[in-house]
Amino acid sequence: MSGQTVASLATLVGGRVVGDGSRLIRGVSDLRRAGPEQIAFLRDGKYRDAARQTAAGALITAEPIDGQAAQIVVADVGVAYAKVALALHPVPQATVHRIHPTAIIDPDAKITAPVDIGPYVVVGRSSIGPGSVLMAGVTVADDCVLGRDVVLYPKVSVYGSTTLGDRVLVHANSVLGADGFGYARQGAQWLKLPHLGELLVSEDVEIGANVAIDRGALDATRIGPRTKIDNTCHIAHNCQIGADCAFAAGCMVAGSTVIGDRVMLAGHVVIAGHLKIVSDVRLGGATILLEDVLEPGDHMGYPVQEKMRHLRNRRAYRDLADLRTTVEQLRQRLFDGRVGD
Amino acid sequence: MSGQTVASLATLVGGRVVGDGSRLIRGVSDLRRAGPEQIAFLRDGKYRDAARQTAAGALITAEPIDGQAAQIVVADVGVAYAKVALALHPVPQATVHRIHPTAIIDPDAKITAPVDIGPYVVVGRSSIGPGSVLMAGVTVADDCVLGRDVVLYPKVSVYGSTTLGDRVLVHANSVLGADGFGYARQGAQWLKLPHLGELLVSEDVEIGANVAIDRGALDATRIGPRTKIDNTCHIAHNCQIGADCAFAAGCMVAGSTVIGDRVMLAGHVVIAGHLKIVSDVRLGGATILLEDVLEPGDHMGYPVQEKMRHLRNRRAYRDLADLRTTVEQLRQRLFDGRVGD
Amino acid sequence: MSGQTVASLATLVGGRVVGDGSRLIRGVSDLRRAGPEQIAFLRDGKYRDAARQTAAGALITAEPIDGQAAQIVVADVGVAYAKVALALHPVPQATVHRIHPTAIIDPDAKITAPVDIGPYVVVGRSSIGPGSVLMAGVTVADDCVLGRDVVLYPKVSVYGSTTLGDRVLVHANSVLGADGFGYARQGAQWLKLPHLGELLVSEDVEIGANVAIDRGALDATRIGPRTKIDNTCHIAHNCQIGADCAFAAGCMVAGSTVIGDRVMLAGHVVIAGHLKIVSDVRLGGATILLEDVLEPGDHMGYPVQEKMRHLRNRRAYRDLADLRTTVEQLRQRLFDGRVGD
Repeated sequence: MSGQTVASLATLVGGRVVGDGSRLIRGVSDLRRAGPEQIAFLRDGKYRDAARQTAAGALITAEPIDGQAAQIVVADVGVAYAKVALALHPVPQATVHRIHPTAIIDPDAKITAPVDIGPYVVVGRSSIGPGSVLMAGVTVADDCVLGRDVVLYPKVSVYGSTTLGDRVLVHANSVLGADGFGYARQGAQWLKLPHLGELLVSEDVEIGANVAIDRGALDATRIGPRTKIDNTCHIAHNCQIGADCAFAAGCMVAGSTVIGDRVMLAGHVVIAGHLKIVSDVRLGGATILLEDVLEPGDHMGYPVQEKMRHLRNRRAYRDLADLRTTVEQLRQRLFDGRVGD
Repeated sequence: MSGQTVASLATLVGGRVVGDGSRLIRGVSDLRRAGPEQIAFLRDGKYRDAARQTAAGALITAEPIDGQAAQIVVADVGVAYAKVALALHPVPQATVHRIHPTAIIDPDAKITAPVDIGPYVVVGRSSIGPGSVLMAGVTVADDCVLGRDVVLYPKVSVYGSTTLGDRVLVHANSVLGADGFGYARQGAQWLKLPHLGELLVSEDVEIGANVAIDRGALDATRIGPRTKIDNTCHIAHNCQIGADCAFAAGCMVAGSTVIGDRVMLAGHVVIAGHLKIVSDVRLGGATILLEDVLEPGDHMGYPVQEKMRHLRNRRAYRDLADLRTTVEQLRQRLFDGRVGD
Repeated sequence: MSGQTVASLATLVGGRVVGDGSRLIRGVSDLRRAGPEQIAFLRDGKYRDAARQTAAGALITAEPIDGQAAQIVVADVGVAYAKVALALHPVPQATVHRIHPTAIIDPDAKITAPVDIGPYVVVGRSSIGPGSVLMAGVTVADDCVLGRDVVLYPKVSVYGSTTLGDRVLVHANSVLGADGFGYARQGAQWLKLPHLGELLVSEDVEIGANVAIDRGALDATRIGPRTKIDNTCHIAHNCQIGADCAFAAGCMVAGSTVIGDRVMLAGHVVIAGHLKIVSDVRLGGATILLEDVLEPGDHMGYPVQEKMRHLRNRRAYRDLADLRTTVEQLRQRLFDGRVGD
């Protein structure tokens, strides 16, 4: 880790230096654990005392504070922190060309140096762009195109005809481009539909661990640029996912569903097939979606509803048995109890 | 891809040729993308114009249409399409005996040629039938029996004492036969119960990516013939799953549950342990099942109900808070409001 | 399998021998399948006849019965069974030092003999304690510490800075220590937050297949001693999980949630981030938790409620549409029907 000066980090994030801008910073840490070569951040007022006493060499903050640390003052601490942290702790990237002797690369593969291909990697007749890192046990089948600076963590499995854009990052043991779940029914039996489509993942997508994204049946499954997909998600054949989406862990999208841009799925959202979700929709945690969402904004629950309405109904559900009892009392009073009228 | 004539494909599917039956077809494609050596299909009337104008060499259709394409006229386009597509794009099968030099096969393993065993595969004292394909990084432990034409995609992990019937196909990174989640409780602590049973997967089963199916505790976990299981499903120890079932992505079946034949689980159905589900049950998406289902047909929801009844209740839920308000108004009118009577 | 005498097994579990304590027992089996060198168990009175007729060499039982089998009489058959089964069928452990020639171990790794490291394993600058077993295709990145007798089944992926305590057992294809799902939002875009924290898994934890547990962002994700986590679970960055917990398959815990000791999650419980769950909470199957649980005991459902109350409400839900109809009738009678009053 070579490090950067506080001043240079401030330039990176468009911030103002308070204190000694020449200090060398090599890493990011927590306010309470940071040392003189580390930068910490203060985002929440309740940590102001910790920030004043921090041993960190520098601090990212929205307002200058008293203390020993050099400070980078910025409007958005979270964004500045991300940029600084990524500059000091960058994602893996190949700068020296290294193909481990145990890697098995098809002679017709098109590898553009530098790449860093680890042990026991297997690559078919595919192309891999410069800067890419394929860690141990990754397999890439034939007819794939991996862009620049793609990072595949150990044991990612990429089926044939998958395209991964520049800077796509996939965590360990995920599977990209497997056959979709498609069968024709003949009597009681299921006849497999071969999956001849492809999987197209755009640039700057990040995919978590143990995710499965299927190829298209005849056409393509598509994941738009900069979309982030967390661990153990499943995206089925022929889905079209837009740009800048974020799907938290355990989300499932069934086949052929079309999702717009900037759609946020909280944890474990289940979405049926052949639906349409417009841009700028946000679905709350554990939502089960069996119908289109054509209005941007916050929706939640099962059945899915505008979020505040869902929350009101959810609250009412807490006393449903009591409500039924009340209704029964009313009914008796009104119908049965009036026999004597 | 050697290809087949239109006439021979028509014979395969029991269809009638309209036009030039001698055309050579090498692949399947979409109506709008197909070329003269490809066959497309017309299943939905709204694509009839596209079908008339298609550049495809041939077309599968329920009714003859005007156009350049040779036609195979069949009653069930979906079934015919599946058969044609599978004939032209067959699943992987070993026809030449090939064991990659990096594969590590136990000297006591029983391998029947031809098999296609890829790089970095590890096979214990197990038997593998002819035609089988084990792709890169697959591991098969001891005492397993793999039938003919089994296909294991990269990095499938097969624990010991697992049997896979003929033509079983398992997608990448799935795990077959791991220990079940079984512990005896001693005070606050959990004592592991060793899992000594086996996993028996019958012929023609297809299993998606990142699936986990556990072995039995003492007896066997069983998956019946021709059952299809989608990505990220989990099936626990001692389950007995019937024939011709289809479980969509994310389904979970807890331990010792017994499921009949032709049971269909839509996406993300969660089923508790020690339950019984009779044959010909279909459970709607995201159903949570904590009780037996002893009636065939469509069931759904939580609590699970006959599907139409579930849908009625789900509709009523949309206004639950309003319903509560109405009941409160009635109560006030009937009880409190009458104080003045 | 060398076997043990009935008497020695009885000593192990603190039981009383009835019959021939000198018999040699080599394995555990089911009452109906066991042979003379196997021990079976009788836990449920309905199997008493099977127990009398068993061919098993020995039997674990709470009360002596008539029959040929030697008997070990104990108060808790389940606990005794677990101990006997584990003694006769122990989890894998390295007793002879064996590193497969294809394993790639960083020269700076600290390996303490004996370990059993299988084919195609890759280990970085990390330390591995004696007795540990790393099966084929496992990868362990840099700066990890694996204790004694750790067992990693095939293709487990361990990211850097992960600590696994003594006797931790991880099933195939699970991923430990991947980056959490953390991004700063800049306009419509997500900026990746590097994950610099670690993952600390305490001793005697067992983790199922296809599980993903993320590292902390700056601090650590922690799994307490003896906690058991089933297949396909996901635990997000910065979670703090206590001791002696049991999470059944498909459970998901979002980021920074703190869970006490002895917490039991039935299958497929989804827990939001930044929550607190106190010790001795049990959550029923498929519970969706979006709020703290500060009372020990049984809770369930969505919204989560004390279990019995949840069950009452769930029952009431079965007739929700009818309830609405009844309320509408009451409303008409009371308001509209009174027009004539």
